[in-house]
Amino acid sequence: MYDLLIQDVLVVDPHPERVDILPGHDVLVRGQQIAAVQPTGQIMPHEAGEVVRGVGMAALPGLINAHAHAPMVLFRGAAEDVSIDEWFNDYIWALETNLTPDDIYWGALLAAVESIESGVTTIADHYFAMDRVAEAIEMSGLRGYLAWTMFGQDSTAELERAGAFAGRWHGAADGRIQVWLGPHAPYTCPPAFLREVAAEARRLGLGCHIHVAETSQQVRTSLEQHGVTPVRLLEQVGLMEAPLLCAHAAHVTQEDIAILAAHDVGVAHCPKTFLKLAAGIAPVTTMLQQGIAVGLGSDGAASNNTLDILEQLRLTALLQKHMQSDARILPVGAALALATTQGARALGQSDSLGRLAPGYLADVILLRLDGAHMQPLHNLAAALVYSARAGDVDTVIVNGRVLMRERHLRTLDKATIVHEVATRLERLKQRGHGRRIQTY
Amino acid sequence: MYDLLIQDVLVVDPHPERVDILPGHDVLVRGQQIAAVQPTGQIMPHEAGEVVRGVGMAALPGLINAHAHAPMVLFRGAAEDVSIDEWFNDYIWALETNLTPDDIYWGALLAAVESIESGVTTIADHYFAMDRVAEAIEMSGLRGYLAWTMFGQDSTAELERAGAFAGRWHGAADGRIQVWLGPHAPYTCPPAFLREVAAEARRLGLGCHIHVAETSQQVRTSLEQHGVTPVRLLEQVGLMEAPLLCAHAAHVTQEDIAILAAHDVGVAHCPKTFLKLAAGIAPVTTMLQQGIAVGLGSDGAASNNTLDILEQLRLTALLQKHMQSDARILPVGAALALATTQGARALGQSDSLGRLAPGYLADVILLRLDGAHMQPLHNLAAALVYSARAGDVDTVIVNGRVLMRERHLRTLDKATIVHEVATRLERLKQRGHGRRIQTY
Repeated sequence: MYDLLIQDVLVVDPHPERVDILPGHDVLVRGQQIAAVQPTGQIMPHEAGEVVRGVGMAALPGLINAHAHAPMVLFRGAAEDVSIDEWFNDYIWALETNLTPDDIYWGALLAAVESIESGVTTIADHYFAMDRVAEAIEMSGLRGYLAWTMFGQDSTAELERAGAFAGRWHGAADGRIQVWLGPHAPYTCPPAFLREVAAEARRLGLGCHIHVAETSQQVRTSLEQHGVTPVRLLEQVGLMEAPLLCAHAAHVTQEDIAILAAHDVGVAHCPKTFLKLAAGIAPVTTMLQQGIAVGLGSDGAASNNTLDILEQLRLTALLQKHMQSDARILPVGAALALATTQGARALGQSDSLGRLAPGYLADVILLRLDGAHMQPLHNLAAALVYSARAGDVDTVIVNGRVLMRERHLRTLDKATIVHEVATRLERLKQRGHGRRIQTY
Repeated sequence: MYDLLIQDVLVVDPHPERVDILPGHDVLVRGQQIAAVQPTGQIMPHEAGEVVRGVGMAALPGLINAHAHAPMVLFRGAAEDVSIDEWFNDYIWALETNLTPDDIYWGALLAAVESIESGVTTIADHYFAMDRVAEAIEMSGLRGYLAWTMFGQDSTAELERAGAFAGRWHGAADGRIQVWLGPHAPYTCPPAFLREVAAEARRLGLGCHIHVAETSQQVRTSLEQHGVTPVRLLEQVGLMEAPLLCAHAAHVTQEDIAILAAHDVGVAHCPKTFLKLAAGIAPVTTMLQQGIAVGLGSDGAASNNTLDILEQLRLTALLQKHMQSDARILPVGAALALATTQGARALGQSDSLGRLAPGYLADVILLRLDGAHMQPLHNLAAALVYSARAGDVDTVIVNGRVLMRERHLRTLDKATIVHEVATRLERLKQRGHGRRIQTY
């Protein structure tokens, strides 16, 4: 007896360098795991607790968002067409200062709706008031790797708070929630604080999630102040002795790449933010060639402006071909891996996430293939990389539980969430704190 | 009495440099034209033949695809991750040689379905067997600027065929179909033939639609063979004395840009094809600064791999910011104009297409704004440029006629078209001609 039978789908099982496609297969789930992937017809519907018929659809591992600030959906479109410095200093810091934990909770719920609707099953999030984000993740049914952002201004209090957050949430929600430590960045955190974070991560057995080398200016400043690049600094302070996830790593040297590879550091690549803020393109192809696990992140919706990992996947493949002036770079199979297996590797979960194979956690999405924009279907991997849209996602399953079926959400009440977010923003604006929000 | 009342929408009326947004407005249609745009409440539903209620939706001018090869949807995904030379020589030429006019007809119908479903109301198409494309455009209800591709191998026959095609179709389908002459490119057509085309265009009063400066190699070859750039060559042969639409213009000099501006030549920018084939990024920002009308094109789905103009819009804004290292470049209003008013200007139709204003043709699309990926809605133009997806298009109206309502197509039978295309491809493969089609 199985808990869930996903019947008669085109199974898409990505490996780092290729993708296996198995037409006419079933995916069988027992508890939280995939029990078997086998040709359709061997199991009858009555042998499963729930049956999801998927005929004509592709089944993929759930997409992994390896770097997000989920509650920033509240600021979607609030700071457009401004330089990266204005974006941070004049808009985002000012807006974030005035958020309440309740605002963050409802923002995280809206992000959860958007993520489920676009086939994202795992979010590595980096923000404040993370208990409220954890509550939203727990309720949504999604999987979260949650880091409470720290700047080291009051290192003892920040580390205590992070440790207490880990105590409450690490392993919670049937293991769907994992806690990482979240030092903000080497340009905002003093090196002494980063050393403390590294020691605490080792002591607690947690990974760290940090921003690194976002702009060339950050690299120049690091060289001036510390005599080393931001990546080398992270190595020196010991942060690479625990699992480490680096968001962005856009401005890295060949030596930096070798350091990241030597320490099995994961990278979260966020191409849309970087184009939009004119901050450069990370050398993803080179990193992959050196064996680095490169996942894809949305970053926050204040810069992206969505949480659409299919879009990040497409942008990454297109931009790397452009950057290398070689149309053969990052072929469709390897591109598809970025959003799945490579994302899982970047989170240190290559044995449990990012594939459709027995023993892996049952995070599965079904995509419709019958849209006019997908037809005719010569090459399924190419259709998923270059044609598929978030709206093609039909069904989302996390940890063996169906969160969306035929685009109907089962865990979250979208209308209430959208309404509550709109109401909260009105209050923010009335308090005068949101006066910098651009409106039409 | 009006023929159509589009009631209570957020009217988005783009100008080249800004966008006007009018909440709570009606768009009134009489015959093929917009009769009025006014605040909701002045006209009662019984005063119109048909009422489209749009509350909560944005109304935009229909999107303009300024360069396409519609029937190439047949080859979507058939040639992935190959160099531009392999793509042309090993796949596309070989595949196209074996197409029948019926194949082209069904391909054009599939492209029409995809276009309507993604809010495109006008297609400037460049292909073969164009009578069959015209039939598909006529049936679909879309607007088409149709050019029969010519290489000048048999110049008399090709010009006669083009003239006869214009005789049959120019101004047909209530004026929805316009014919342009379609010399392929300055690197494939001899200059003497281009001179003949220019003379014929003037004689018939038609515009010309041509590919130009797609690769740096084409520019080098032109300089070697003709002593001038491809753009200068087009000027020398007289093609700029009639309306001219240049697809791509990716590798142009400052002098080329000045030539294009001086002759009011339109440019169709196709960013996704160019990234995917690693062929460079056109200097769109510079062209716009010089006053050139830059519209957006999908190019063919064998390279794109869709016909999604919203995606081209987003890519263009993102890429220009990146290319100029300035996040303030191409703000959301000007970006939105590319897919609408600028596209209309590129087709020489700035007085009839691309705006929602009285006297303009009634090509209107309604987009839903209630998706989680669009909420909260701080900035409508930003939401349309950076968050909207083709699947958000709810209603499509062309020439005053409703082609899609609540995503239900009114003119085309999608299931039959998808089935027929799949069947035709099986025959192509069985004849052995499609052996080069990549499949999973």
